[in-house]
Amino acid sequence: MLTINSNRLNSRLQAFAAIGETAKGGVNRQALTDGDRSARLMLAELAWARGFRVFQDPMANLFVWRNGLDEALPPLLIGSHLDSQPAGGRFDGALGTLSAFEVLESLEDAGTATERAVAVVSWTNEEGCRFSPGCMGSTAFSEGVIPGTWQEKLATDGAGFAEELALTLASLPEAVMLPLGFPVHAYLEVHIEQGPSLEAAGIPIGVVKGIQGTRWLDVTVTGQTAHAGTTGLAWRRDPLHALTAALSSLYGTVMPEDPDARFTIGRIMAEPGSVNAIPEVVRCTVDMRHPDPGRLDEIEELARLRIGREAERQGCSVQISRSFDMPPCAFSERLQQVIADAAAACKVESVSMLSGAFHDALFVNRVAPAGMIFVPCRDGLSHNEAEHVEPSDVITGCEVLAQATVSLLGSRI
Amino acid sequence: MLTINSNRLNSRLQAFAAIGETAKGGVNRQALTDGDRSARLMLAELAWARGFRVFQDPMANLFVWRNGLDEALPPLLIGSHLDSQPAGGRFDGALGTLSAFEVLESLEDAGTATERAVAVVSWTNEEGCRFSPGCMGSTAFSEGVIPGTWQEKLATDGAGFAEELALTLASLPEAVMLPLGFPVHAYLEVHIEQGPSLEAAGIPIGVVKGIQGTRWLDVTVTGQTAHAGTTGLAWRRDPLHALTAALSSLYGTVMPEDPDARFTIGRIMAEPGSVNAIPEVVRCTVDMRHPDPGRLDEIEELARLRIGREAERQGCSVQISRSFDMPPCAFSERLQQVIADAAAACKVESVSMLSGAFHDALFVNRVAPAGMIFVPCRDGLSHNEAEHVEPSDVITGCEVLAQATVSLLGSRI
Repeated sequence: MLTINSNRLNSRLQAFAAIGETAKGGVNRQALTDGDRSARLMLAELAWARGFRVFQDPMANLFVWRNGLDEALPPLLIGSHLDSQPAGGRFDGALGTLSAFEVLESLEDAGTATERAVAVVSWTNEEGCRFSPGCMGSTAFSEGVIPGTWQEKLATDGAGFAEELALTLASLPEAVMLPLGFPVHAYLEVHIEQGPSLEAAGIPIGVVKGIQGTRWLDVTVTGQTAHAGTTGLAWRRDPLHALTAALSSLYGTVMPEDPDARFTIGRIMAEPGSVNAIPEVVRCTVDMRHPDPGRLDEIEELARLRIGREAERQGCSVQISRSFDMPPCAFSERLQQVIADAAAACKVESVSMLSGAFHDALFVNRVAPAGMIFVPCRDGLSHNEAEHVEPSDVITGCEVLAQATVSLLGSRI
Repeated sequence: MLTINSNRLNSRLQAFAAIGETAKGGVNRQALTDGDRSARLMLAELAWARGFRVFQDPMANLFVWRNGLDEALPPLLIGSHLDSQPAGGRFDGALGTLSAFEVLESLEDAGTATERAVAVVSWTNEEGCRFSPGCMGSTAFSEGVIPGTWQEKLATDGAGFAEELALTLASLPEAVMLPLGFPVHAYLEVHIEQGPSLEAAGIPIGVVKGIQGTRWLDVTVTGQTAHAGTTGLAWRRDPLHALTAALSSLYGTVMPEDPDARFTIGRIMAEPGSVNAIPEVVRCTVDMRHPDPGRLDEIEELARLRIGREAERQGCSVQISRSFDMPPCAFSERLQQVIADAAAACKVESVSMLSGAFHDALFVNRVAPAGMIFVPCRDGLSHNEAEHVEPSDVITGCEVLAQATVSLLGSRI
């Protein structure tokens, strides 16, 4: 068993939370800003102080490298990200990055020599707030190239992506450049759940079996606007009547009949939007998630069928288009077992679960076996300055990561 | 039987449609504008040309007076309004006012002396677009006073109510001033249906039995916003799930089980309105109408019950408040019979029906027996430049009004 230093880890989390700290105790350290560069520099300085090597790649993904005995073997990667939402919390990203660094220091403290190298990674722009999309760093790493269209991107604050990326790379001139997408043995990431289920179940460790697929639909139902008072039922072609009937039936079946499914209507609007007029058009979005791509297809088909049928009943027409489609990802079963065994070795309960949100691990999983360790966060709250993780849960997450790292260094995946 | 002059009536309709005519063949002759004043002046000039007297009251309601033999008897009022919506049609208001004037001229043509006076009325600001509320003229007439709060009102175009009213009164200096709310024997108004049922049934005359009560609700259902991907069904408090279930059930029962009921959701919105977030709050309006005030209460109670129940099921809270409450009006049964008999005498089919929209007759009915004669309009379209009434239906409506007028002049109500 590798022993970690609890005080050091919790102090590191405090120190990094001070970089971009907000008045309400959260963090604003958006990707490729001065705050982000300060956090990268602090990690690099801590690394150099322990004698680790520091690398970066052309996407400014940052690597803290502890050498293995055989440098020909691809490294084990562990980490997460250091950028935050504009009104983000102290743990989203930082927890996984600093837990990984704690494992690296603990290996050093123990004087353990490993066959292959272990590298802590901090991926660039996981959040995708300042520059869209999210997970830019891990995406480029998995594709081995920075998509050409990103160069022209402008930040929400007007800054150019190419300029900010160049500034960020230049801010760590001592970090040797690695090629984008070098071979990796496996990848492990600790992250807060960003949902309420671990806390509610009182279980400190989630073994993430995969990340759900996500599909978004734009739905438009068109009827005919008419006077609310003068138009009898027989003459109505009411798109909201149609849509509420369809949605109500979908709410009542999709999630209740399939615990892995997520079905959310986040946006709905009626036009012209007059209190005394039957709407002409009603628009809504649909967010559907499922770990099984076949079930995503089935749920979409069900939604199209029911909306279409209710629209026809009300004499309305329907247009439905996909605005986003992210296939699901299933993490390595071997890594899931390694994490579950690590939790057992640490004598803590763990539960197999899905991730509802994207993470860098989803993209890394395309080029190397990846696995994720979830820890509870208070009230499931994330992307929020009030985001909170109990110090004891921080330690448990890091201990399981340490144990899994040690297991993987001696194992074939 | 009183014979009317069909050509004269249709020509008059054309002439008045030219005042404020729009490029698309509609009319923009909003209340208390120069256009409105021009239309009043034209009616007054036509009246003087036939030797009728012209009066106005402090609300600028305009009266064209054909003397009776006994000036001590309260007059029979017939008419409607001359103001229009900003993109209104040629018939809404003008049809009733000019049909009434045609009846007056036909009585004059026939040399018929009547016991009591007959007066054509054009009520001020029925539409309520430029100055809110609508039916200002008939409201003030029925209350015998101009509400003090109206004096400060500003038009959508910035003009002041008091100034525009004074200008309008001053534009007809020859019109002798009558007190607001003088005694009236009865009131008859021809109007387009503004709905599709007469046209669909192929029946030229609707005998209006009353005007539905209208009640508006503002509904707010509050749950908890959360990530669409990370939040499982058990942790959701989704206000849109609750509201669609309640609305779908209300759509499915309120109108299908009661042909006199109207139930319309014109406005719905989810906040924060993000595609991948469960809404925190969903707001909607409810427009309920019914001729029976007890049934309005029952429908409101049902809506509150079902929305409350579904909200509770989803762990949400509900706020419902009334934003408008207009009691129903039942027109005189005797006048309904007079109109139905008049239609029969004219050998045209008629049907008893409700009005879904407000009319000046609703307010006059509070101080004198009132009745309304509806004629079909194409596709039920109104408040629209494409509003259209077949010339033959114009004539039928006026003939029934003429016959009903003659009946009333010889009858006690």
